[in-house]
Amino acid sequence: MIKQYIQNNQDRFLDELFSLIRIPSISAKPEHKSDMVACAEHWKELLLKSGADKAEVMQTKGNPVVFGEKIINPEYPTVLVYAHYDVMPAEPLELWKSSPFEAEIRDGHIWARGANDDKGQSYIQAKAFETMVKNDLLKVNVKFLFEGEEEIGSPSLEEFCAAHKEMLKADVILVSDTGMVSKDQPSITTGLRGLAYWQIDVVGPNKDLHSGIFGGAVANPINVLCKMIADVTDADGHITIPHFYDDILPVSQDERDMIAQVPHTDEAYMKALDVNALFGEKGYSTLERTWIRPTFDVCGIWGGYQGEGSKTVLPSEAHAKISSRLVPGQDHEKIGELVKKYFEEVAPDYVKVNVTSMHGGESYVCPITLPAYKAAEAAYQKVFGVRPLAVRSGGSIPIIAAFERVLGMKSVLMGFGLESDAIHSPNENFSLDLFTKGIETVCEFYNEFAKK
Amino acid sequence: MIKQYIQNNQDRFLDELFSLIRIPSISAKPEHKSDMVACAEHWKELLLKSGADKAEVMQTKGNPVVFGEKIINPEYPTVLVYAHYDVMPAEPLELWKSSPFEAEIRDGHIWARGANDDKGQSYIQAKAFETMVKNDLLKVNVKFLFEGEEEIGSPSLEEFCAAHKEMLKADVILVSDTGMVSKDQPSITTGLRGLAYWQIDVVGPNKDLHSGIFGGAVANPINVLCKMIADVTDADGHITIPHFYDDILPVSQDERDMIAQVPHTDEAYMKALDVNALFGEKGYSTLERTWIRPTFDVCGIWGGYQGEGSKTVLPSEAHAKISSRLVPGQDHEKIGELVKKYFEEVAPDYVKVNVTSMHGGESYVCPITLPAYKAAEAAYQKVFGVRPLAVRSGGSIPIIAAFERVLGMKSVLMGFGLESDAIHSPNENFSLDLFTKGIETVCEFYNEFAKK
Repeated sequence: MIKQYIQNNQDRFLDELFSLIRIPSISAKPEHKSDMVACAEHWKELLLKSGADKAEVMQTKGNPVVFGEKIINPEYPTVLVYAHYDVMPAEPLELWKSSPFEAEIRDGHIWARGANDDKGQSYIQAKAFETMVKNDLLKVNVKFLFEGEEEIGSPSLEEFCAAHKEMLKADVILVSDTGMVSKDQPSITTGLRGLAYWQIDVVGPNKDLHSGIFGGAVANPINVLCKMIADVTDADGHITIPHFYDDILPVSQDERDMIAQVPHTDEAYMKALDVNALFGEKGYSTLERTWIRPTFDVCGIWGGYQGEGSKTVLPSEAHAKISSRLVPGQDHEKIGELVKKYFEEVAPDYVKVNVTSMHGGESYVCPITLPAYKAAEAAYQKVFGVRPLAVRSGGSIPIIAAFERVLGMKSVLMGFGLESDAIHSPNENFSLDLFTKGIETVCEFYNEFAKK
Repeated sequence: MIKQYIQNNQDRFLDELFSLIRIPSISAKPEHKSDMVACAEHWKELLLKSGADKAEVMQTKGNPVVFGEKIINPEYPTVLVYAHYDVMPAEPLELWKSSPFEAEIRDGHIWARGANDDKGQSYIQAKAFETMVKNDLLKVNVKFLFEGEEEIGSPSLEEFCAAHKEMLKADVILVSDTGMVSKDQPSITTGLRGLAYWQIDVVGPNKDLHSGIFGGAVANPINVLCKMIADVTDADGHITIPHFYDDILPVSQDERDMIAQVPHTDEAYMKALDVNALFGEKGYSTLERTWIRPTFDVCGIWGGYQGEGSKTVLPSEAHAKISSRLVPGQDHEKIGELVKKYFEEVAPDYVKVNVTSMHGGESYVCPITLPAYKAAEAAYQKVFGVRPLAVRSGGSIPIIAAFERVLGMKSVLMGFGLESDAIHSPNENFSLDLFTKGIETVCEFYNEFAKK
């Protein structure tokens, strides 16, 4: 019945999606302010048309949020669908094969800015919801939260969530903004890394010195900074700061086995980056190193003479910006303090060292034993015929961690994008087949989740 | 007789010196080109008046050189006096208490640009020579070589020397362009450090990477560079590069004892630099670390994000400029190659490392057993009543090493300046007492050297 409804209504679904794409809701550009409002208003209408009992455009300190809901029965479990209606700028325009804001269907794909990220993916949610409602299959309550600032870092959403906790209350958040490892191998992103960031300033003598007259007797701040940085990682790529790894949540063998099934070869990876070898923490694969292990990377360093030619100087100061990607269990504020304290303690007495904790972000993990995760897993299995892999992402989506912190809810990241979809680039696209299968999968998720 | 002659003629000596000071022979400024020639011509006249048999202004590819000589007897030993007639710019002019190019005598000092460096010091040489000639005491042959480009790095002099080896032939070079540790404690500079300089470029991935997506699996070039730099020095401040110290000439206990007598306290030194502790090679004092031991100083470092705030990036490249001050025995080209080879060998295979040897300069040492050194030592002892200390300088005077390399002659650095003379700064000055004692000391040097 689900498959049939989707097939029968596909043309209309696409027409509606294209009407959404036609509004250039580019959050990064102030001149599109009215488009943001128009897009939010249009979404409100589309949600109501899709079967929501109510939908409204709500103010934030930035672009408005669209909220909608259908409460079938207060006793039923509730799903909060999160997505975003803003898109990235389309430049460089000359590289597009068709107009970025006039969607075109070509070679079985939808081509447009937002075709995947996130208008296409969010429309999967709206139309799965409609399919369930119109066929009287929905046995869960559904709420929608669509924001208009995801591409600029969601600066207003956390405050909005904090102010509307009761309205947003649900059992789980469903996020449609990620990808799958390949078109035949679905995957669900279960973990995101967090981040801690520091600036370290090392000051030696009170002015730049003549390296002939003073060199050898006065500690050189650049040499000292290099030593302090070098000491943080050992030959096996382990971070030596005491207690750095203490709070990391273990990753199950089942999850590591799934990571090992993700298509990846070090050879292709190295070739793409033009490096002759990889280096990372001993005992972990390349994907594990980027997904389930923390890092210690110098993002920037500077001091002394950096111009052409040679100038002999024993500089007064040296500076570095350093970040650690963190993994579930590691608290970014605790790690921030730990590293700051470590540097201050190892600082030799012949220099002054100042460490400033800059911004940080929590990591996120969705346990693969979570009922909503199990429901998602079963839904993919049914539609794609294979078990989806639980994978992780090395990057951070701060709002997902904020949802957990502010609303106390876990998120399940059911995405249908592919690497080849070129999100944020010219010729963004989305597979029509995955658009359809996505709708079907989300419908099956509702069915499975209702059973939990 | 010497003392008497100097006393009787002091006013004339000063008048002549002031006439030299009056010519603003600033080599750094092209608009003073004619002053350079005028100053050289004036020197030629002054040398003839002082008793030279002949004197001439000779062309170089840059400012002219003044050459003069008095050959008493071809069988006698010959001394080549080296000095320079160019001076540093006088700016900032508003900080001068009297006009920089109109010498003034005040508080027992001569105040003017060049009062010490090097018109005052070179005039000591001319008037010591005159004193010896006019009193028929001179028992050595004397040659003069005054250049006009010392303050801009002597770019033409090495080539000039190579082209006039026979004319410049002597047994020793006498240089009057350095200082003493205090007015009552004469000293002779017996060593200058050399220099080697490198740029090291570390390249990792072929572009800046997202530190979330790639961090942990791809070596970070800044971390790698820091480690490579840190490994070069150990906890005792020793340089760990194999064979780095191999060729260093030993410094005698006599010399180390003299260095220990040089007025210096670490407390005052630290206070002036505003550091709480010093760091250098274990087993050596602060002065020894800067005078008789080599160094490894990063002069500059850069890579990745250096702006305001925080940007997470795994940078593609990192760079550093590094210099080593070298000591007698160490060949700057050999050390240059040694360090380059070391970095290339320790470079891990996950980055590309390129090391470029930049400029270098030889160190210089005057053995304190050299007959001319012994003569200078005896001369100071006689005039000042104490044995002069053999000291060194941490900096480099490349032309002194070039004299040895091109002309095959050692130099004895008999200087009469003091730290408080403010050379290169406003209110440069020179003690009248040391001006007189300097003339006397050089006369005694001629007497002593004639005996050797």
